[in-house]
Amino acid sequence: MQEPSYGAGLWHFASYVDRYATDGYRDPVGTLECLQMAGRVGSLSAVDLNWPFSPNDLTTTEIRTALEAARLRAVAVTPEIYTRTFARGGFTNPDVSVRAQAIDLVARAAELARDLGCDYVKLWPGQDGVDYPFQADHRELWKYSVDAVRELATAFPDMRFAIEYKPREPRNRMLFSSAAVTLLAIEEIGRDNVGILLDFGHSLYGGESPAEAARLIISRGRLFAIDVNDNLRGWDDDMVVGSVHPLETFEFFHALVDAGWEGIWQLDQFPFREDPVEAARVGVETMRGFHRALERLDWDALRAAQSAQDALAAQRIAKRALYGALAETQDGSP
Amino acid sequence: MQEPSYGAGLWHFASYVDRYATDGYRDPVGTLECLQMAGRVGSLSAVDLNWPFSPNDLTTTEIRTALEAARLRAVAVTPEIYTRTFARGGFTNPDVSVRAQAIDLVARAAELARDLGCDYVKLWPGQDGVDYPFQADHRELWKYSVDAVRELATAFPDMRFAIEYKPREPRNRMLFSSAAVTLLAIEEIGRDNVGILLDFGHSLYGGESPAEAARLIISRGRLFAIDVNDNLRGWDDDMVVGSVHPLETFEFFHALVDAGWEGIWQLDQFPFREDPVEAARVGVETMRGFHRALERLDWDALRAAQSAQDALAAQRIAKRALYGALAETQDGSP
Amino acid sequence: MQEPSYGAGLWHFASYVDRYATDGYRDPVGTLECLQMAGRVGSLSAVDLNWPFSPNDLTTTEIRTALEAARLRAVAVTPEIYTRTFARGGFTNPDVSVRAQAIDLVARAAELARDLGCDYVKLWPGQDGVDYPFQADHRELWKYSVDAVRELATAFPDMRFAIEYKPREPRNRMLFSSAAVTLLAIEEIGRDNVGILLDFGHSLYGGESPAEAARLIISRGRLFAIDVNDNLRGWDDDMVVGSVHPLETFEFFHALVDAGWEGIWQLDQFPFREDPVEAARVGVETMRGFHRALERLDWDALRAAQSAQDALAAQRIAKRALYGALAETQDGSP
Amino acid sequence: MQEPSYGAGLWHFASYVDRYATDGYRDPVGTLECLQMAGRVGSLSAVDLNWPFSPNDLTTTEIRTALEAARLRAVAVTPEIYTRTFARGGFTNPDVSVRAQAIDLVARAAELARDLGCDYVKLWPGQDGVDYPFQADHRELWKYSVDAVRELATAFPDMRFAIEYKPREPRNRMLFSSAAVTLLAIEEIGRDNVGILLDFGHSLYGGESPAEAARLIISRGRLFAIDVNDNLRGWDDDMVVGSVHPLETFEFFHALVDAGWEGIWQLDQFPFREDPVEAARVGVETMRGFHRALERLDWDALRAAQSAQDALAAQRIAKRALYGALAETQDGSP
Repeated sequence: MQEPSYGAGLWHFASYVDRYATDGYRDPVGTLECLQMAGRVGSLSAVDLNWPFSPNDLTTTEIRTALEAARLRAVAVTPEIYTRTFARGGFTNPDVSVRAQAIDLVARAAELARDLGCDYVKLWPGQDGVDYPFQADHRELWKYSVDAVRELATAFPDMRFAIEYKPREPRNRMLFSSAAVTLLAIEEIGRDNVGILLDFGHSLYGGESPAEAARLIISRGRLFAIDVNDNLRGWDDDMVVGSVHPLETFEFFHALVDAGWEGIWQLDQFPFREDPVEAARVGVETMRGFHRALERLDWDALRAAQSAQDALAAQRIAKRALYGALAETQDGSP
Repeated sequence: MQEPSYGAGLWHFASYVDRYATDGYRDPVGTLECLQMAGRVGSLSAVDLNWPFSPNDLTTTEIRTALEAARLRAVAVTPEIYTRTFARGGFTNPDVSVRAQAIDLVARAAELARDLGCDYVKLWPGQDGVDYPFQADHRELWKYSVDAVRELATAFPDMRFAIEYKPREPRNRMLFSSAAVTLLAIEEIGRDNVGILLDFGHSLYGGESPAEAARLIISRGRLFAIDVNDNLRGWDDDMVVGSVHPLETFEFFHALVDAGWEGIWQLDQFPFREDPVEAARVGVETMRGFHRALERLDWDALRAAQSAQDALAAQRIAKRALYGALAETQDGSP
Repeated sequence: MQEPSYGAGLWHFASYVDRYATDGYRDPVGTLECLQMAGRVGSLSAVDLNWPFSPNDLTTTEIRTALEAARLRAVAVTPEIYTRTFARGGFTNPDVSVRAQAIDLVARAAELARDLGCDYVKLWPGQDGVDYPFQADHRELWKYSVDAVRELATAFPDMRFAIEYKPREPRNRMLFSSAAVTLLAIEEIGRDNVGILLDFGHSLYGGESPAEAARLIISRGRLFAIDVNDNLRGWDDDMVVGSVHPLETFEFFHALVDAGWEGIWQLDQFPFREDPVEAARVGVETMRGFHRALERLDWDALRAAQSAQDALAAQRIAKRALYGALAETQDGSP
Repeated sequence: MQEPSYGAGLWHFASYVDRYATDGYRDPVGTLECLQMAGRVGSLSAVDLNWPFSPNDLTTTEIRTALEAARLRAVAVTPEIYTRTFARGGFTNPDVSVRAQAIDLVARAAELARDLGCDYVKLWPGQDGVDYPFQADHRELWKYSVDAVRELATAFPDMRFAIEYKPREPRNRMLFSSAAVTLLAIEEIGRDNVGILLDFGHSLYGGESPAEAARLIISRGRLFAIDVNDNLRGWDDDMVVGSVHPLETFEFFHALVDAGWEGIWQLDQFPFREDPVEAARVGVETMRGFHRALERLDWDALRAAQSAQDALAAQRIAKRALYGALAETQDGSP
């Protein structure tokens, strides 16, 4: 097996605000500084760039230079269709002109992504959905969403669009809420260049088995990208990979590798109160542990146990590989 | 608007056991006695019959006579593919002979349903899925499920099969876990006579908006039946309709009627510690309240508010209709 | 029964940010403007003032003038011990000097509260707790918390301190997480002037029955204040009162009035995407509906049904009073 | 450190029913057979006996003989105050005569426990609480519970009573719902011989940090016993120890050993579809892994990291010890 490539959403290195710490958890961090920090991790080779940049007059050349300096490539661009303009919805905003603005922002992101040689544009319409019972006609929101993504996919036939689903936050109920809902929408969109970014944490706290969701999306040829992190199953805590659920995360890695999935193993952690570079290092180190565990794994034995649906046997085989690899990984760490 | 028809799963009137009260919450109640109780409710016109009957040598004639005496018709048969034989799975059992038994049991239920003039056979494979991470190859379980339902739908082209999805229980993770997952499976099954039974409570505690799920299923022409109840959003409590979430239940009724859905408004309550006849009466009374509320509703105003996605306005319009109708309904009750 | 007094946390009228809409859901709103908006609601008589004010050089005189102009009184001051300085904890910060800053900020808030004639200082140490398994020695955090509150209560024997508990957010796990945990801490604090602010939504999404929690706190003489709102049971959504759970909210009001509790009926709503004045009006209107429902309620019948633990009877009695009152309230609204 | 003692609730080896598999997941298993199976595990030294026995005319002598044959001692008796008689409540039943029956059943269990030389009687009043909003006056249920336990503790001053709290199931809301609520009740009970059995899974799915709950209970001198298992955080799945949450389980073990807690490390697993003896072996093997991990742990380094509340450092130290020990444990298994 070839050494996997690791990446991170660039926001991993930014400062955060929330509704309480309105003055931010750190001083604001610009895009170039984030890129430097990503480079300092040492084990990352790709980043997903949220855009507009900060400051927003950074040129593509400046970004390209900073990427090179940090030995990173831009795997994706994530247009921020979830800021104040889009507070009442991006693609699903009741105001047609705001919907047009959302589509336009993504279109410009697609041009940037093309320019930077990215693999895909990530679509995360986090403000699309509802807060209250009775607030909207769900068919209308669905139509708006499907039409918007189709329009974009048609306009950029050479670019891929990866929808990142999530049950909720910031909206109380997001429209693209699960793997299966998103697959149904993609089918209606009817374009080959639309797929899914599966975020492990979104899947977990949405009540899915992430491994099962991955299998389902792959079976339809739509798994364009993944993000990894962890949480306490009640919210999108974006904690460090493997800090709570090592077994289910390993099951997720196993499902992907078993299915022959290839892509960037990418972090979507929010280290609110931790050092971002150190948190990324731990994340990558843990992902390496999972890959080593897959090398140790007795694949035939696992297949037999799974075929017999023998939970105790399957877990024993998985744990033997996992704990050995993680022990080794831990021993190698400072 | 024509007076809606109300129904109930016949198990509403049975005795229950659980892992603690292993001696049952009441004395065992046979099928004929359940039918008598259903008749005593006074406002039910249809029942979904779980089968095999109790005792299991009851003849179809005896059932038909009891149905007539209670002025009920059998809208569906629910084969019990979740008892001990199927503890490790019905359609997804690792043992091919048990899978065959599950299919055979459903086939015989389909014959009974045809014989009784039912609208559909309900499929609720509650033991199909997994308990532990790594326990099974999810693709294999998916294939077993899709193949089994397709086989049945093909064998009984004149009968409809309604899959009732549920996130979990008794399995820790059920395969048919959500509206969207089930729609994807139905698409692969590729038969027109396979659809969905949407249980309000399953949808609610699975994190869906039941109204949104209904819209989605209807948009694909697959909403064959519904069940109504309530819960505390963390489990399938099968409480009396409207006892916790009157607004979301009303939104669900609104979505169905707005979409022109026609069918039986059916209870799936488990009155563990309440009088079953009385609990059913409260359930029907509350459902009548929702239908009256739809008559009071200012549909145009709601449409406008929803189109503007104005939560406060939409809720005001909905509440005005709902509380007036429920107040009237309550005043008429003993 | 005397007309109840209604209040609101002043942040109800502010602008919000979150980790996505970092540019805020509205333009920033200063304290004086918030007070004007609170006044425009028309039915509020009290506000809980978060502090430091915005801008932070507002004088007490300016505040007092604005309060008078809006015909409001300040019932409480809420020191913001959850901003960047306290990101890694206020009372429980690992750094002793930050712990001292938190205590100092509260002390100055207590002086302000005394000056403004408030009933209490609210303590909401939202950053106190942990994010990760193994992160801290829970005994140490507990001791820090208990010592800090005791020090404050001792320093201000004439002022009351109300701890607002919450399961989580912004910390993944807050220390003062439930009614019972907080009562145990208060007992160790050992001062009469320390009590609890029960936020309905915190209680609900924390898995408590808010009515039961209220009874427990009142039984120990520690219910100093309440906040009301609603949510979808998975997070602190701070939605408009009664928009999801009218029955449980009514049960909460019933428990408080039955126990003879007296205080301000206070909103803690976060209308991210709604008009704040209108959202407050709906909140107060709904609370008035609950109070009218208590006048309609057949108290003796409810007592008898509850004594028999007869769920169907108790619900029937409660619903009859509630829906009648809410229907009336709705009819009176525009 | 002395080799820890391992135990299990005897129900681990029984057959289960639930509301779907009403014919049971296995053939019924009598108490003597359960004891034989417990003996076959090989690593258990203690059992908690649910009582009445099956068949219920087994004599104490027969039990004692079977215990000896299996080289087990009875550490506790758990009276079944949650069967049909107590469906509407044991200690909190609205019917005074049923309340008396519950107390009487526990009293007889206490005599049996005394006779068998047990350490404690376990109180798990799983039917005590409510299902519906408005169903009961929570103060009344509280008083019934406190009075019943006080009466028992007073009648058996030489016996210890351990209350096992749980958020819900079979009741939708249990009265003894959390560590803190139970500590408050124990305080009102006012007897030294009443304490708590902390079930790891109950704590986890109740939203507690089990390690934090353990510290709290120990700080009040009330941790009489523990049970261990695992779940998916939404329900009391009673899965095999460490099958989902190895880190939080290890944190729990660490908290107990660090606090000098001594007692039986006891399984409360429900292997519905697994071999009970094998499931118990895996459970004990995993618990041994945790104890070995505590020997490997760098206690001073962890203390320093926790004192600094440094999540990444504390996790690194914990994982290094844990994964090494579990790898070793796994390697030794068949």
